[in-house]
Amino acid sequence: MALVVQKYGGTSVANIDKIANVAKNVIRTKQEGNDVVVVLSAMAGETDRLIRLAQKAADEPDAREYDSLISTGEQVTVTLLAIMLNGLGCPAKSFLGFQVRVLTDRAFSKARILEVDTTSIRDELKKGTIVVVAGFQGVDPENNITTLGRGGSDTSAVALAAVLKADVCDIYTDVDGVYTTDPNICPKARRLDRITYDEMLEMARAGAKVLQPRSVELAKKYNVPVRIKSSFTDEGGTLVTKEGRDMEKEVLSGVTYDRDQAKITVVRVPDKPGVAARLFTPLSERNIVVDMIIQNASSDGYTDLTFTVSRKDIREATRITSEAAGAIGADKVEVDDNVAKVSIIGVGMISHSGVAAKMFQALAREGINIMMISTSEIKVSCVVEAKYTELAVTVLHDAFGLEKES
Amino acid sequence: MALVVQKYGGTSVANIDKIANVAKNVIRTKQEGNDVVVVLSAMAGETDRLIRLAQKAADEPDAREYDSLISTGEQVTVTLLAIMLNGLGCPAKSFLGFQVRVLTDRAFSKARILEVDTTSIRDELKKGTIVVVAGFQGVDPENNITTLGRGGSDTSAVALAAVLKADVCDIYTDVDGVYTTDPNICPKARRLDRITYDEMLEMARAGAKVLQPRSVELAKKYNVPVRIKSSFTDEGGTLVTKEGRDMEKEVLSGVTYDRDQAKITVVRVPDKPGVAARLFTPLSERNIVVDMIIQNASSDGYTDLTFTVSRKDIREATRITSEAAGAIGADKVEVDDNVAKVSIIGVGMISHSGVAAKMFQALAREGINIMMISTSEIKVSCVVEAKYTELAVTVLHDAFGLEKES
Repeated sequence: MALVVQKYGGTSVANIDKIANVAKNVIRTKQEGNDVVVVLSAMAGETDRLIRLAQKAADEPDAREYDSLISTGEQVTVTLLAIMLNGLGCPAKSFLGFQVRVLTDRAFSKARILEVDTTSIRDELKKGTIVVVAGFQGVDPENNITTLGRGGSDTSAVALAAVLKADVCDIYTDVDGVYTTDPNICPKARRLDRITYDEMLEMARAGAKVLQPRSVELAKKYNVPVRIKSSFTDEGGTLVTKEGRDMEKEVLSGVTYDRDQAKITVVRVPDKPGVAARLFTPLSERNIVVDMIIQNASSDGYTDLTFTVSRKDIREATRITSEAAGAIGADKVEVDDNVAKVSIIGVGMISHSGVAAKMFQALAREGINIMMISTSEIKVSCVVEAKYTELAVTVLHDAFGLEKES
Repeated sequence: MALVVQKYGGTSVANIDKIANVAKNVIRTKQEGNDVVVVLSAMAGETDRLIRLAQKAADEPDAREYDSLISTGEQVTVTLLAIMLNGLGCPAKSFLGFQVRVLTDRAFSKARILEVDTTSIRDELKKGTIVVVAGFQGVDPENNITTLGRGGSDTSAVALAAVLKADVCDIYTDVDGVYTTDPNICPKARRLDRITYDEMLEMARAGAKVLQPRSVELAKKYNVPVRIKSSFTDEGGTLVTKEGRDMEKEVLSGVTYDRDQAKITVVRVPDKPGVAARLFTPLSERNIVVDMIIQNASSDGYTDLTFTVSRKDIREATRITSEAAGAIGADKVEVDDNVAKVSIIGVGMISHSGVAAKMFQALAREGINIMMISTSEIKVSCVVEAKYTELAVTVLHDAFGLEKES
């Protein structure tokens, strides 16, 4: 008998019929002899509806109230699933964040889990009850409702799997696993049977939207085996674990892209200690996330500094950067929001030299100009003109032979 | 400086614009120098929407899950109002049942409040914060969410006013007070400035839908002055208190009617001890509420027994009664759902003889046949043919001169 945590996203619980499918899947898992803990998101679209209400109520909704408002979406789905399971003769009980209790810090809308009390859940599992937990939500030490940020239900599921020492955490979503790249762009994309936490993490960060990066970090930290599965079919799936595929053979796990990129260049920055801090501190103070940062080698006492931000932040980032650039005596600020980031990812590249060079060559053969490069141990990212996104992805997928099973 | 509890019903918070009106009213009350505790219902229609979802999920939704589901409606309105108040520069904080905490018994969907912890609310009031509490909900000793039954937000408001020793509990609704009768039926209906708890209680029980009877009982028990006010106008209002109007002068406070009545007669019941119990026990076991019960004087060892139930229960009540009637040897069961109850109410009638007789005469003058009569210290109710409802109300309103201020 295994303990299985199953997480279903918004599209899987979008209406009563879909919740009925979830109920069927849960009951089957239970009947196979497993203890089952289910974690649910809100119905697809519901959280957005609540956010729109909040924005109508105030331009900048109070953070505490906002979290309490948007947490109702999960309360609706967990109670409906529990009602359905009980109606089908399967004892089930829903738990909200405060009932579990999922204790978080006080950072509304991006709270981090501090502690999960497993007493009540274990008691119910012992009785044979199916436990249905509201994802995305917790309470802070003062019993204020907090939420974990977009996609936070993945984090809830992995955290529960970790503290309950579950045998597996199944994340049901609308795709049937992790692919070598986006099948919509590249028809040769292949589903991966396994992937390591680190690869998954880089993929998530580089734009693949299968799992929230925080949930992968958590899974890695507590070594929780995570399976990405389709809600619609029982076939397929990708297992995210510590051990990857045969690393000697396969160099890459995938190619990702991210169109939500804008590039800002500060031209002729005086090359003195402290200028980078003076540029980036005001951005971070306004919670603008800077992704890549490139500083060219300085020769004449001046340097160009280029960085990327999310497109939604481009106007505010430009304003803040222009002010800072003036203050530090830079020449000017150039903005380009017509760019995309293309990345190759794989633990295999650690032991294979020349991976980056092969990437650059493949792009060069197609005449794709590389504007920025950044690398990590298991990832190489290039910023290119946005119009080349699909071409770059397809070319790289081919160049590294990702369509072939190793 | 007074402490004011304000309760707004579903139509007063039906959408963002209406919530904005509530915010305005709350802020004005606060600026007049009062401490303000606001209690809200769910948006009009929202609780029904959630109930429909539950009924789609299972024929008989699990009681615990059902309460947790339908309590989300109030969570949405209190957070939206708090967001709006904060946005307007008025510090406000929402409290859910578990946050207050409103401790109830374990009777899901009809829970009774056991205890209200006022610590957090008092702390916030001391800081000048406007406190916004979700009506209708509480938690049982195991932290399960419970609800107080339809109209339970009135009870929440009065309970809070009682424990906080509020100076007044204002119930905002879509009418501007308690009338001598339904103005839709009788244009001469007059708004009462004051009414006693007992009168209000009888009115609520006799069909007037202004306040939930439980909330009036609670107000009476803790002597909470309750004001019925309109959300749309600042004029008018009715104060419900211990002391009524000048009782020497005014005999009646109002005329009410209730069309939700059906009459069941068990014909020729053997007049033996225990038969009434054998008739009514199975009904109460099925939670069917019996309103009036009339047993005619017995002469020949047989008696007729007539009682009324809510129309929605008529089918089940008839079935159960027929079974019981057979078992006790009664002749037959007759059903009439074409009836209505008309009542006159007033503490004044205690000291005025002939009130009932005057009522019967007024009805007789119009040829309205009285099928059943029941009396209490401050109420006389008659069951009449349904088609006479409006006529009976108008005639009684005239006969007792209710259009005139005393």
